[in-house]
Amino acid sequence: MPKTPVEQKHGASRIGSEGDLVQTYLAPLAKDMPGSFGLADDAALLTSEPGTDLVFSTDPIIAGVHFFADDKPRDIAWKALAVNVSDIAAKGAKPVAYLLTFAFPEAPERSWMADFAHGLAEAQAAFGCRLIGGDTDRAPGLLSVGVTMIGAVPTGAFVRRHGAEAGDHVFVSGTIGDAALGLALRRNPLLFERGVTETDRRFLIDRYLRPRPRFALAAALRSHARAALDISDGLLKDLSRLAGGVGIRLRFDAIPLSASARAALSTDARVADATLGGGGDYEILAAVPPSEAQAFSRCAKNAGIDVHDIGVLEGPGLIVFNSDGTEIKPREFGYDHFST
Amino acid sequence: MPKTPVEQKHGASRIGSEGDLVQTYLAPLAKDMPGSFGLADDAALLTSEPGTDLVFSTDPIIAGVHFFADDKPRDIAWKALAVNVSDIAAKGAKPVAYLLTFAFPEAPERSWMADFAHGLAEAQAAFGCRLIGGDTDRAPGLLSVGVTMIGAVPTGAFVRRHGAEAGDHVFVSGTIGDAALGLALRRNPLLFERGVTETDRRFLIDRYLRPRPRFALAAALRSHARAALDISDGLLKDLSRLAGGVGIRLRFDAIPLSASARAALSTDARVADATLGGGGDYEILAAVPPSEAQAFSRCAKNAGIDVHDIGVLEGPGLIVFNSDGTEIKPREFGYDHFST
Repeated sequence: MPKTPVEQKHGASRIGSEGDLVQTYLAPLAKDMPGSFGLADDAALLTSEPGTDLVFSTDPIIAGVHFFADDKPRDIAWKALAVNVSDIAAKGAKPVAYLLTFAFPEAPERSWMADFAHGLAEAQAAFGCRLIGGDTDRAPGLLSVGVTMIGAVPTGAFVRRHGAEAGDHVFVSGTIGDAALGLALRRNPLLFERGVTETDRRFLIDRYLRPRPRFALAAALRSHARAALDISDGLLKDLSRLAGGVGIRLRFDAIPLSASARAALSTDARVADATLGGGGDYEILAAVPPSEAQAFSRCAKNAGIDVHDIGVLEGPGLIVFNSDGTEIKPREFGYDHFST
Repeated sequence: MPKTPVEQKHGASRIGSEGDLVQTYLAPLAKDMPGSFGLADDAALLTSEPGTDLVFSTDPIIAGVHFFADDKPRDIAWKALAVNVSDIAAKGAKPVAYLLTFAFPEAPERSWMADFAHGLAEAQAAFGCRLIGGDTDRAPGLLSVGVTMIGAVPTGAFVRRHGAEAGDHVFVSGTIGDAALGLALRRNPLLFERGVTETDRRFLIDRYLRPRPRFALAAALRSHARAALDISDGLLKDLSRLAGGVGIRLRFDAIPLSASARAALSTDARVADATLGGGGDYEILAAVPPSEAQAFSRCAKNAGIDVHDIGVLEGPGLIVFNSDGTEIKPREFGYDHFST
C-alpha cells in the first residue's frame, strides 16, 4: 500500500540524531520565543516584565509511574505540560515558557515524535506558553519527560501553600476522584462493568490522560485566596497540606463528584477511597477567608470555573464523615513515592 | 561496634518518605532563598534584579550515561550542578538558583543522601547558587538527577553560541581531553600503566568526576567574545558548533594539554582521539574578534583563568593537522545520543 505523505515524512523509521529530533520536531514549538534561539544554543534567555516575579515548577513524568508507556504520545506530552501548569496556576501565576528534557530508552520513531510534538503544540496553545530550551538523552530504562515550567505573577501576589487560618473556607474546583477512577479503568477496563456507561468510561479515562489545569482561576486566587495548591497526590493528603495545623470536618457528600464518578460509586463503595486518596485530578484547593468567600466564587464563575465550598477549617484533625454522621476511614490517604 | 553519631543520624537505613528526604537533606540547602519557601510549596518564586535577564539551562545526569552508579554521592551531586553552571557561564551569566529533580530506583539510604547533600552544599558554595525547588520520584531504572539552573546576565549581554565570523580568534580555557582520559581510567584502571603516575591518574579521574565550570570567565566573555559555548560533547564537535559555517585549520599542538594528558599521550597515540572527540571537559570555547583578543586574554588572566588562542576562523572546513603538516583524521568526532 502506498504511504501517505505523513507516513513518508514521519514514518516508522527512527530518528538518527539529536539535532534532527530538536530541529524537526521541537524547534517549531519555540519559534515565537526569541530567547529560545531556535533551540540551537546551550541556554535560554527570558526577560521578566517589570512588576512581575517569576514562578517555577518542575515535575517530571516517567513511564510506568505517571503514564503508561503505550499511552498516545500526544497525551503524554499534554500531561507533561499540564501537571506543571497546574502548579503554576495554583500559585496565581500564568504559564509563560518551559524547558523540556527527555530520557529515551532508544531513539524514538518519527511517527511517535511527530505525535508527541502535536500534543505539545495543543497544550501550548491551550495554556499559553512556549518551549524555550531543554536537553535530550538516551538512557537505559523507561521514557522520562522532564518539564520546568516558568510562570509570571504580579510582584507580591504569589499564593502560598501555607498560611490558611481557622475559619477559612475550603474551596475545590471541578470534580474530585475522576482521574483515579480513570487510572483504575485504564488498568482494568472491566471495572464497574455494570452501571457505568461507555461515555462515563471515556470521560473518566480522559480525566486521567488529559488533566485540565485551572490556569483560568489564577486571578481569583490572587485576589481572594489566603493559600492554595493543586490536588496531585489525593484530596485528603493535599487538604492536610493546605490546612497545616488546623483541622477540618469534611462531609463526604460536600465533595463535588462528576456524574460518571457517581455512577461508579453506586456500583462499588470502594470508589469513595479513590475520591479521598486518589491523585491526578489537578484541581485547585484553596483556603479563602470568610469575608472573601462570596467574591471568590463569583470571580471563579466569571472565569468559567466551577468551585465548591467543601467546609470550614476548624478543630484539630482531618475527619471525613457521611451524611448520617458516621466517620469514613479511608484506606488510602494519598500518594508518597517512598512509603511502603 | 558502637555507631558514630553520624552513623546514628545518617546510617544505612532507608529514607521513609518524600517529606523526610526533602526536609532533612534538601531544605537546609534552600535556607537563604526566601522564594524556596523552605521547599514546602509547589512552586518557587524568583524576582530578577532590574537590568538583568534570566538564563536557563537544564541538563539531567543519569547513572550509566553521565556518571557511574557507584560514584561517590557527593561527586554525582557536584557534577549535576557543574554541568549546568558551565552552560550558564558560557553565556556570560552568573548562576543564581536551581531546581532539582530525582528519579530514584529505590528509596535512598540516609548515608547516601547525606553525602549527596554534602556535595550539593560544596557545589553551591563554589558556584554561588542556591536550591529553590524541585521534585522527587521513585521509578524503576537508573538514578537520574535533573537540574534546571537559573542564571542572571546584564540585559542584552547574553553571549550566543552562534555569530562567530571569519577572522575571529578561537580561545579555549584550561586543558582539553582530561575528562575523557579520566573516564577511560575510571572504566579501566590498568590503562596507560607505564608512563602515567598515580598522581596523573588521580588528576585525570578528578577532572572527569568534578568538572570545574568556568563561571569566573563570564565577565570576559560578555565584554569581548562574539560567541561562546562550553565543551561538553568534545572539542571538534563543539568547535564546529561555534564555527557555524566558517572553518578552521587547527594545529594539534596548539590545543592546551595537561601534563598528565601529555604523559598519557606519550604512551598511547589514541589519546589524540580522546582530546579531539572526548567530552566532559566543561571548558569554554569562545570566538573573539581580533581587535578584542588581547583584552580577552588579559581579562581572563585577571579572573584567574588560563585561556589559549588555538587558531583563527577561516576557510571552509574543520581540519586538524600535526606540526609536520600531516592531517589528523580523528576516529571520533564527538558525542551524540542517537547516532550509532
